[in-house]
Amino acid sequence: MNLEIISSNKSFGGWHKRYRHRASVLSCEMNFAIYLPPQALSGQKVPVLYWLSGLTCTDENFMQKAGAQCIAAELGIALVVPDTSPRGEGVADDPSYDLGMGAGFYINASQSPWREHYQMYHYVTRELPEIIETYFPVSTRRAISGHSMGGHGALIAALREPGRYRSVSAFSPISNPSRCSWGQKAFSAYLGSHPLQWQEWDACQLLRRYESKPEIKPLPMLVEVGLDDPFLSEQLQIDALIDAAASSGWPLTLNCHEGYDHSYYFVASFIETHLRFHARYL
Amino acid sequence: MNLEIISSNKSFGGWHKRYRHRASVLSCEMNFAIYLPPQALSGQKVPVLYWLSGLTCTDENFMQKAGAQCIAAELGIALVVPDTSPRGEGVADDPSYDLGMGAGFYINASQSPWREHYQMYHYVTRELPEIIETYFPVSTRRAISGHSMGGHGALIAALREPGRYRSVSAFSPISNPSRCSWGQKAFSAYLGSHPLQWQEWDACQLLRRYESKPEIKPLPMLVEVGLDDPFLSEQLQIDALIDAAASSGWPLTLNCHEGYDHSYYFVASFIETHLRFHARYL
Repeated sequence: MNLEIISSNKSFGGWHKRYRHRASVLSCEMNFAIYLPPQALSGQKVPVLYWLSGLTCTDENFMQKAGAQCIAAELGIALVVPDTSPRGEGVADDPSYDLGMGAGFYINASQSPWREHYQMYHYVTRELPEIIETYFPVSTRRAISGHSMGGHGALIAALREPGRYRSVSAFSPISNPSRCSWGQKAFSAYLGSHPLQWQEWDACQLLRRYESKPEIKPLPMLVEVGLDDPFLSEQLQIDALIDAAASSGWPLTLNCHEGYDHSYYFVASFIETHLRFHARYL
Repeated sequence: MNLEIISSNKSFGGWHKRYRHRASVLSCEMNFAIYLPPQALSGQKVPVLYWLSGLTCTDENFMQKAGAQCIAAELGIALVVPDTSPRGEGVADDPSYDLGMGAGFYINASQSPWREHYQMYHYVTRELPEIIETYFPVSTRRAISGHSMGGHGALIAALREPGRYRSVSAFSPISNPSRCSWGQKAFSAYLGSHPLQWQEWDACQLLRRYESKPEIKPLPMLVEVGLDDPFLSEQLQIDALIDAAASSGWPLTLNCHEGYDHSYYFVASFIETHLRFHARYL
């Protein structure tokens, strides 16, 4: 495994670093960013918050815009941010912003021409954490969060494998992709048109599955939404998330904020709340 | 005066807004950004920190990357960020990144073809503050700060008119533009080749002028530099700033940080220090 360093910036006493590597499950080169807090530099193995970004983003948006490093440095949490899809020559793409590169949806594609590279679920939940835990001074205490498409990614990762993460949070998540146009478009392309194939990748449907599994201890879940988010009712389907959590008895903490929208100005305003939430369980 | 709103995002209980307007001293349309903290929304007239950005930037870089809104909201300070040069069709430009659009250097150009539009000093110190103080709930308590080329801009604005600002700070400022290649290139183009014309626009030369004016009370000045900044010795000439401040008895507080570079990761790491510094005088 060859980790090529792209850039390195000191930040709040720690280091923000970008790397490039060959991702075997994606069959392409990928960039990721890591923020190592000061505690990691003095020999401590720190826990990791994985952050999944939204449509059109790369590993850079969150690190540049969310202002998370300040609090991560205080709390001693590493931040890891993957790209949002496979990229590069030979990787299938689509001219629209909500399919193909920049729109991997954190699922494992089963359909041609996507399946060769679009295995983002496997990448963000397995291959990338293995690299992080091998090459960086981090523990296996993991939390996951994300924004919009990345909020969907964080929720499904936590719900599919609750033992892997100690807590999950999301900003403005696409909560019920089977029932919104962003999700239906991506799932049809990546998974095929039969909605049965979609259940495994839809936070609301995954939540309802816990109705029949009272033996599983739910992990803490925090969701933040802006009430002036233009995507709130149609694409995010937060009401469906509330219903699904209620019906399966999953303890969801939902914070709604008047006047806030879908942008990183919203994420930055409440990222401290989320980092302190995760710190309680990490 | 027609202020056209471009965008509006709630942020830390206040509002980040971008506007477009006709700038009469620049003879072109200009964008600027303002962050109004929560205190401004409840009827209080808040003080303003003007932020001048560096080469290639617009009004957006600082607002997206510095993480300043969090502290500005706590302290009740508005942030105003102009663009870094005139722009648009008919505005003189140059293919290089360090001359023309994105590189206005916050001076008033005297040479053709620049003088028609490149009157950025007048714009950021006069025309824009007049607009801000007319149309927004702010007081006339002003401070000024900036990064790199914008650090130079902040220093010269404060030194030329100490009564206009209550405090000045800078990150990685181009401190002695007459003696570095960035400054020499820009000053030759905008001001002509005679270095006598440059004295009025060079922080070190302006500082030395105070040797002969002990009656003027110096305003508080804070400068932050990263010791791994690749531009530190050649372009920023911080040593010359230290010498000039010492020789004129100007109280300069200079913080040097090992490992930090020239990026917004550096600015973000210490913006809280600067906002709290300005708050003491605002």
